[in-house]
Amino acid sequence: MPGRPETPVLDTVTYPEDIRHLSLDDLNRLAEDVRREMIDAVSGTGGHLGAGLGVVELTVALHHVFDTPRDRLVWDVGHQCYPHKILTGRRDRIRTLRQPGGLSGFTRRAESEYDPFGAGHSSTSISAGLGMAVARDLAGADNCVVAVIGDGSMSAGMAYEAMNNAGDTNSRLIVILNDNDMSIAPPVGAMSGYLSRLLSSKPWLSVRNMAKDLVSHLPGPMNRAAAQLDEFARGLVTGGTMFEELGFYYVGPLDGHRLDHLVPVLRNVRETKQDGPVLIHIVTKKGHGYEPAETAPDKYHGVGRFNVVTGALDKPPAQAPNYTGVFAKGLIAEAEHDDRIVGITAAMPGGTGIDKFGVQFPERTFDVGIAEQHAVTFAAGMACEGYKPFVAIYSTFMQRAYDQIVHDVALQGLPVRLCLDRAGYVGADGGTHHGAFDLAYLLCLPGIVVMAPSDEGEMMHMVATMAGYNDGPSVLRYPRGEGEGVDLPERGTPIPIGKGRIVRKGKGIALLSIGTRLFPCLRAAEDLTQRGLNVTVADARFAKPLDMDLLRTLATEHEALVVVEEGARGGFGAHVLQTLAIEGLLDHGLKVRTLCMPDRFVEQGKPEQQAIDAGFDADGIAATVLGLLDATAAGSTGEEAPVRA
Amino acid sequence: MPGRPETPVLDTVTYPEDIRHLSLDDLNRLAEDVRREMIDAVSGTGGHLGAGLGVVELTVALHHVFDTPRDRLVWDVGHQCYPHKILTGRRDRIRTLRQPGGLSGFTRRAESEYDPFGAGHSSTSISAGLGMAVARDLAGADNCVVAVIGDGSMSAGMAYEAMNNAGDTNSRLIVILNDNDMSIAPPVGAMSGYLSRLLSSKPWLSVRNMAKDLVSHLPGPMNRAAAQLDEFARGLVTGGTMFEELGFYYVGPLDGHRLDHLVPVLRNVRETKQDGPVLIHIVTKKGHGYEPAETAPDKYHGVGRFNVVTGALDKPPAQAPNYTGVFAKGLIAEAEHDDRIVGITAAMPGGTGIDKFGVQFPERTFDVGIAEQHAVTFAAGMACEGYKPFVAIYSTFMQRAYDQIVHDVALQGLPVRLCLDRAGYVGADGGTHHGAFDLAYLLCLPGIVVMAPSDEGEMMHMVATMAGYNDGPSVLRYPRGEGEGVDLPERGTPIPIGKGRIVRKGKGIALLSIGTRLFPCLRAAEDLTQRGLNVTVADARFAKPLDMDLLRTLATEHEALVVVEEGARGGFGAHVLQTLAIEGLLDHGLKVRTLCMPDRFVEQGKPEQQAIDAGFDADGIAATVLGLLDATAAGSTGEEAPVRA
Repeated sequence: MPGRPETPVLDTVTYPEDIRHLSLDDLNRLAEDVRREMIDAVSGTGGHLGAGLGVVELTVALHHVFDTPRDRLVWDVGHQCYPHKILTGRRDRIRTLRQPGGLSGFTRRAESEYDPFGAGHSSTSISAGLGMAVARDLAGADNCVVAVIGDGSMSAGMAYEAMNNAGDTNSRLIVILNDNDMSIAPPVGAMSGYLSRLLSSKPWLSVRNMAKDLVSHLPGPMNRAAAQLDEFARGLVTGGTMFEELGFYYVGPLDGHRLDHLVPVLRNVRETKQDGPVLIHIVTKKGHGYEPAETAPDKYHGVGRFNVVTGALDKPPAQAPNYTGVFAKGLIAEAEHDDRIVGITAAMPGGTGIDKFGVQFPERTFDVGIAEQHAVTFAAGMACEGYKPFVAIYSTFMQRAYDQIVHDVALQGLPVRLCLDRAGYVGADGGTHHGAFDLAYLLCLPGIVVMAPSDEGEMMHMVATMAGYNDGPSVLRYPRGEGEGVDLPERGTPIPIGKGRIVRKGKGIALLSIGTRLFPCLRAAEDLTQRGLNVTVADARFAKPLDMDLLRTLATEHEALVVVEEGARGGFGAHVLQTLAIEGLLDHGLKVRTLCMPDRFVEQGKPEQQAIDAGFDADGIAATVLGLLDATAAGSTGEEAPVRA
Repeated sequence: MPGRPETPVLDTVTYPEDIRHLSLDDLNRLAEDVRREMIDAVSGTGGHLGAGLGVVELTVALHHVFDTPRDRLVWDVGHQCYPHKILTGRRDRIRTLRQPGGLSGFTRRAESEYDPFGAGHSSTSISAGLGMAVARDLAGADNCVVAVIGDGSMSAGMAYEAMNNAGDTNSRLIVILNDNDMSIAPPVGAMSGYLSRLLSSKPWLSVRNMAKDLVSHLPGPMNRAAAQLDEFARGLVTGGTMFEELGFYYVGPLDGHRLDHLVPVLRNVRETKQDGPVLIHIVTKKGHGYEPAETAPDKYHGVGRFNVVTGALDKPPAQAPNYTGVFAKGLIAEAEHDDRIVGITAAMPGGTGIDKFGVQFPERTFDVGIAEQHAVTFAAGMACEGYKPFVAIYSTFMQRAYDQIVHDVALQGLPVRLCLDRAGYVGADGGTHHGAFDLAYLLCLPGIVVMAPSDEGEMMHMVATMAGYNDGPSVLRYPRGEGEGVDLPERGTPIPIGKGRIVRKGKGIALLSIGTRLFPCLRAAEDLTQRGLNVTVADARFAKPLDMDLLRTLATEHEALVVVEEGARGGFGAHVLQTLAIEGLLDHGLKVRTLCMPDRFVEQGKPEQQAIDAGFDADGIAATVLGLLDATAAGSTGEEAPVRA
């Protein structure tokens, strides 16, 4: 393992104030140092590599020119913020990135005053920045607010809403559009005042057509030349027409790796202090300056540990197929038998497994961009026409489409299939990415079917169940990571809707699990055998509709029930309790506990440890059972607690 | 009361096929008939008047030209669909609009095959339409898909996401942008391929500046002329530049009240069948053809019953101030003492009372457009800078900002105040507008304070509580409609966070209410006195954090507890139960029931009747208590149920 890289200029820098006076040469050297430091750090911790490498020069230039933290610097998504962390007093902890108790892999207000806004999800920076800019104006202050947003993040409606609003105000806001590549994904949105200008110049249809006709009657080459001239005029003279039409002053495009270009432009924008929003359009290359990352930007977007010299990625050997892969396998198996099945992703084809589906069925695969709202209603439109859309979106990102799920899908009873990957704790990505709330925000919706597999074999069956269920919306939530290593069928077998199963028959005490908490429940039941307890374990399979026969059996044939899920309060356990109460099944004195995520936000960490902290690992489940028996015994009138008998 | 209007041409029409053959003259007469019929119907039922009047000619033209329902016609929001309903087999029921059991005030799939997509919330039509268009292409069909969207709806990010996606496909989709007024609100969003073209033409900064310099060195008038020429060229020759840059073929603008303009253009667009999306830009006037509505489009956007001849609106005398008004009063009272308070609305200043706040504090008032996502994160940005943003959005529309509440507000613990108007049943607007899910989707979030006032005096206190609470996010949910008629303080007094109150002290049985269900609970308690029961009634005030002392008192000093709320399952009652279970407070055999909205979508109706149907009116609450006692008695071993004693 090579030693730490040499970083002579960076070694003189702790905070941005240390770089304000540096010469252009020193800034260039500093950028190289930061790049080396970052590559070295990420090679040990894993994390987002490409995005940070692409903004090293921008980060240096911003902290050189702007008076951070007084000037607010808001990074969109935040996965490009490692150079920023290195330059803002966090270099000494940079090798704790994404580790339990270490630096977050995103910006985080609690971590540093240089992080004025935390991120993780995309496309929030312009809204937050505009809020800060407007607040500054109200307060009569004069600091700058800079939002840095990638071209991909510009596909989200939220960015558009913010631009649309910003262009309509006089607040001074600097938006830096970081175009990651020359082969650009579609960029920005929202326009302000465009239609009104169009109308006020009164180019009504007849006049316009006349002009168009004129052009079309020109001889061919001349026609083309006219078109090019128009293109040229719009592109060059008016700059970023759309941004300008959105009320932004447009500057660019700039080479985002040239400090000699960035610094004077940023300084100029900072000093002119004109009213209204400015958009600075820079072009960068993801992974810039590190050849392995430049040549395979996808592969090095987020990495595990790797060898700095060779770029070789350490991959721990996979134990079992992961749920994402099993989802893809299951979906492909179903789609081979049903040409109404289509796959939809919101800019996460790789993360969701829709890429594999797309290889098999390119015409039935739709990547709609970072646009979860549209993804769900687009799917609803397809469902209206008899198609069977599977929309694969991470649990945490599905929060963006909540109204669309309620209003466009559930209310209309449309058979859209929502596939929520990364449900439960996600590990190193931390608090912004846990799939904590989906059960709570979905189980309240009438008529929705919600299921969760206990292992990857069940996953195959549940994908098949969704494929066959066409009477309304259905949801499948499944975790990040590997399965249990069980055998996989070539194709799943549909499960009856709303039917759970008893996996282990005992007496006195029952555990009811949803999803992958089944295995810890089974281990807890085994452990409790040592203490003379014979525990029933049930797998709900469906969080909605609940299996009333199963619930009745659990509630009436046992004295105690513990409900276990990997989700926030208000989810499966709460719904089970409410159903039991409404049905009068608590009246005979059933002792009940729920185990779920604690009622606080949990940061990055090992999912196994987080399960222990939540108390829903095998030991925690067993401890809850024992505590329940103790409490019951203490509360009873001295007799032996019957369930222990 | 005048008789029904004469509608000779309309009388020959039941379905669109009856108008396909009509001459232009007849179509014009039909439009007049439809307008008269609609005005007459709405004068009796109340409803959305202005929007429908604005699209009478468009509706006639669309059904004349397109082969509905085979061609899909998707109305955005749907409040402009009354002429459409009149022409699509529903004229005989048009005077049941928005009445219980009558026609919905919006489009609704269950109502007619001519409503291929239901609506109510804005900006969904392009997404749904694109889904239908893509499905058609996959199926090899050749029907048209037409989405009609207003300029206001174009401010929502969702519309942008859909345009951004549509412009990137080859699917034939017709979007009709209905510009409501010459004094336009900011329109459309999203661009496709624009940046890439900008870059591919390589107008890098230096070249661009040169061109700009050239222009700026021209003598003044010439400079201006050049600018105008550019404006002209962009406006006339390229048409709707932004739409074209988004990949749309742009047609317009057109006078949307001229059938002789609309029909040939629509026919042309229908028949050319070119690939990709087309945007037809039409200009209409809200309330067109009915003078009272034309001159006061705001007032006649949504109306109660009115006199057709004079336009005079029937206003039932108000019994007590409504919650919206009290919210405004409370917020103004607080803002007079605290210049950090700001008010934010998402295009609903009148509906939320932010308009009144704005009269008093125009500089501290922000209407961000139909952009709930942005509204919340914009508020988060202001909160970062020490401001106290009150974001007033209807409960049902707040669903659009769920991820922003989770990720930008709650996770960061920012003191954003979310004010959820129209929480609970809303009446005539129906299923798309009930505020049903907010308790379920918010109570699962760690660190959030959620309160609901039991009357309008409490409302004042809770607004004051929010103003004073700066440690994290807080939510106030309150219903549509009038309060209880209690005295209002000039300014509220803050309530201790998380403290409920016992309003009536009894024994044996306890009712725990959140929000305005308190009064039915009190009436139920009175009724139960007749049956010899002495019922405790508590007002939780806070759904989160729960008052553990109060819960303990209710759970340990009573044998039965009924929890009452006006919200969906998984809300307050579920959280109370889960907390009781976790704390072991159910172990001693407490009998519990929850009363909440039923687990099905509820359509329009009288809120009082809907409360009866849900069983949480006073009679229903009393019946639940009695049923609980009977069940307990039946379940016991023959003894008198102790709680009755």
